[in-house]
Amino acid sequence: MSSEPPVPETSVLAVASHVGKQFVHSHTSRSRNKIAVFVLQSLGCDVAALNTVQFSNHTGYRQWKGTKVTAQEINDLWDGLKQSYLDRFDIMLSGYVPGAAAVEAVGSIAKELKEKSQAKPGSFFWVLDPVMGDNGKLYVADDVVPAYRGLVHLADLILPNQFEAEYVVALLPLLSEVKITDFASLRTAVETLHSRYNLPHIVITSVSLPLTAEQAEPESRPPAHTMSVVGSTRTSTGKSRLFSITFPVFDAYFSGTGDMFAALMVVRMREAVASSSLKDKASWLSDDDVDALDLPLAKAAEKVLASMHEVLSRTCEAMQVELDRELADDPAKEGGLSGEERAKKVHLLKSRAAELRLARNWGCLRGPTIEYRAVKLE
Amino acid sequence: MSSEPPVPETSVLAVASHVGKQFVHSHTSRSRNKIAVFVLQSLGCDVAALNTVQFSNHTGYRQWKGTKVTAQEINDLWDGLKQSYLDRFDIMLSGYVPGAAAVEAVGSIAKELKEKSQAKPGSFFWVLDPVMGDNGKLYVADDVVPAYRGLVHLADLILPNQFEAEYVVALLPLLSEVKITDFASLRTAVETLHSRYNLPHIVITSVSLPLTAEQAEPESRPPAHTMSVVGSTRTSTGKSRLFSITFPVFDAYFSGTGDMFAALMVVRMREAVASSSLKDKASWLSDDDVDALDLPLAKAAEKVLASMHEVLSRTCEAMQVELDRELADDPAKEGGLSGEERAKKVHLLKSRAAELRLARNWGCLRGPTIEYRAVKLE
Repeated sequence: MSSEPPVPETSVLAVASHVGKQFVHSHTSRSRNKIAVFVLQSLGCDVAALNTVQFSNHTGYRQWKGTKVTAQEINDLWDGLKQSYLDRFDIMLSGYVPGAAAVEAVGSIAKELKEKSQAKPGSFFWVLDPVMGDNGKLYVADDVVPAYRGLVHLADLILPNQFEAEYVVALLPLLSEVKITDFASLRTAVETLHSRYNLPHIVITSVSLPLTAEQAEPESRPPAHTMSVVGSTRTSTGKSRLFSITFPVFDAYFSGTGDMFAALMVVRMREAVASSSLKDKASWLSDDDVDALDLPLAKAAEKVLASMHEVLSRTCEAMQVELDRELADDPAKEGGLSGEERAKKVHLLKSRAAELRLARNWGCLRGPTIEYRAVKLE
Repeated sequence: MSSEPPVPETSVLAVASHVGKQFVHSHTSRSRNKIAVFVLQSLGCDVAALNTVQFSNHTGYRQWKGTKVTAQEINDLWDGLKQSYLDRFDIMLSGYVPGAAAVEAVGSIAKELKEKSQAKPGSFFWVLDPVMGDNGKLYVADDVVPAYRGLVHLADLILPNQFEAEYVVALLPLLSEVKITDFASLRTAVETLHSRYNLPHIVITSVSLPLTAEQAEPESRPPAHTMSVVGSTRTSTGKSRLFSITFPVFDAYFSGTGDMFAALMVVRMREAVASSSLKDKASWLSDDDVDALDLPLAKAAEKVLASMHEVLSRTCEAMQVELDRELADDPAKEGGLSGEERAKKVHLLKSRAAELRLARNWGCLRGPTIEYRAVKLE
């Protein structure tokens, strides 16, 4: 495996936060917290991380509180970067942003970077992961959803999950609700995003639809526990070029997979266009005669899913080994634990064991073996 | 180059801070700030970073203030890790710790981890970088120096620079002052540390001595601008086994080189003992018949310096390219800058350009070519 980075020199502004269960370790940060930053760096990107959640002054491990940065603070941070001549970015990756005003502040950074790049098409690319919720549940404030309305058209690539895609489409004037329930409504959603928002590239990251009649035939039925990503790059007339990649799902919950996916997409998209003339075209938009399966987006997504699958497989294996070891460890000590304490211990050990194994599986990030291929959706 | 990490599974507690010029970028952290953590992770270690300097709530980029964590906070953080079953570490790496009480708190973490490892010799190893000053100047409070007195004997490997080594030796009762001015006083310092503190391994990281008579002979004179590291692993009777590695010095200032050196030493020492029976011996102490040049410490230091030299070479090259580009960039814009503003801009651009290029030079960390070999000092 070559030690050369897969991308040319690439400066990334990563706007995100580290919430959820990892939060409690944020001051004594465990290595796997800052997943997007580590993935980007270890694949050769120079990363400035603008954190959207910071920590209160009330130290003491058990009293850590996250405080959300305000829009004003995001603006100040951005001004600070500019004043220090640290505002030259090839790519911006934005993830979870707390609150509508903060979302707008992030949008105006993107707008500024986009405007600065006008003279040099393709020199700035915004990957927007519109983190709002999953599995039918919003986990941002209600006003965050419309706050994306003014921004989405500025993005070059968006990475909603199926639930978020419905919300994004629903942001459009005149469309009050869109449910993605089958392939037809999925296509409508993607085409609407391409045509109304002019969005160049879309990847819906976790698509789970009822089987079509054809798929339901016993001989072509996909194995149980699979999911798909569905992507498309628009043509010059706003038509979709849809592909999908189906992959097996692990029966375990890992936090940070979304951040890992987004960071890998940044690297692999940049890689896919770096040696072609596409890199000098606005939004890296392929010519109309390029087939769905030949899109840089499809090539990138294949590599990303290959890395994801390898890292998650290794994480599953290591998790089991770690849990077996920890729970077998010194059973005498367990004597003093109540049932509740024991359950808490098991929960903590499980959370720790399920953290993504990135540092030891760098090879999976750098040179994964592609197993799941894109297929064309027509 | 193999993608397998050079070390077996290794859990590291990294106690350090990120001060100095990088500090201003700490919230929007530039990728190169957290050098030790990145180096450790990218070589396969699982790292918990206990930061000894944290940030005030006064956000706004220009108003960031660092607040030093107190001893109580360090204790709380440690208790939190224990309660979450996150206190299993193979190695602790400690660097800059602000204030005497905080130094003592870090020492008691080391003591606790050391005691826990008694039943399994070699299962815990403390690398202590006693950051106190350089070039004749202390940059910690005066009471930090004696605070190390109660701790140094707990360390397995210390990494002082020449100036700090004098201070550490001077901590010993009865020795009020030691100046390292020549090879004889250097040897005395190392032997004193071995015998009085029982210190297993010592590397003095930046030794610059007047030439000996022999070295001063024209044919054996080292090239200008070199420095040495001098290391030793004690024998069972406390004798030294001294080696030195001389390497060229770059004519530029890079911050973070000390952190990079320490993190690489952690990885390479672990690697050097991992496949031998040494890993099951307390402090990984080689048998008495092992020659200075065959010590794991010497092998590790050779690899570390090879990586350092490659990364610094690449940084120098990239720095020049970046500066040329930035300063040539859009000279029309410069019109509005006063002389003072222009000087400030150049300073900021230089600071940024001099940041260690780690993300793009992962190959230099992973598989450096050894150019500078250890020689025996007798």
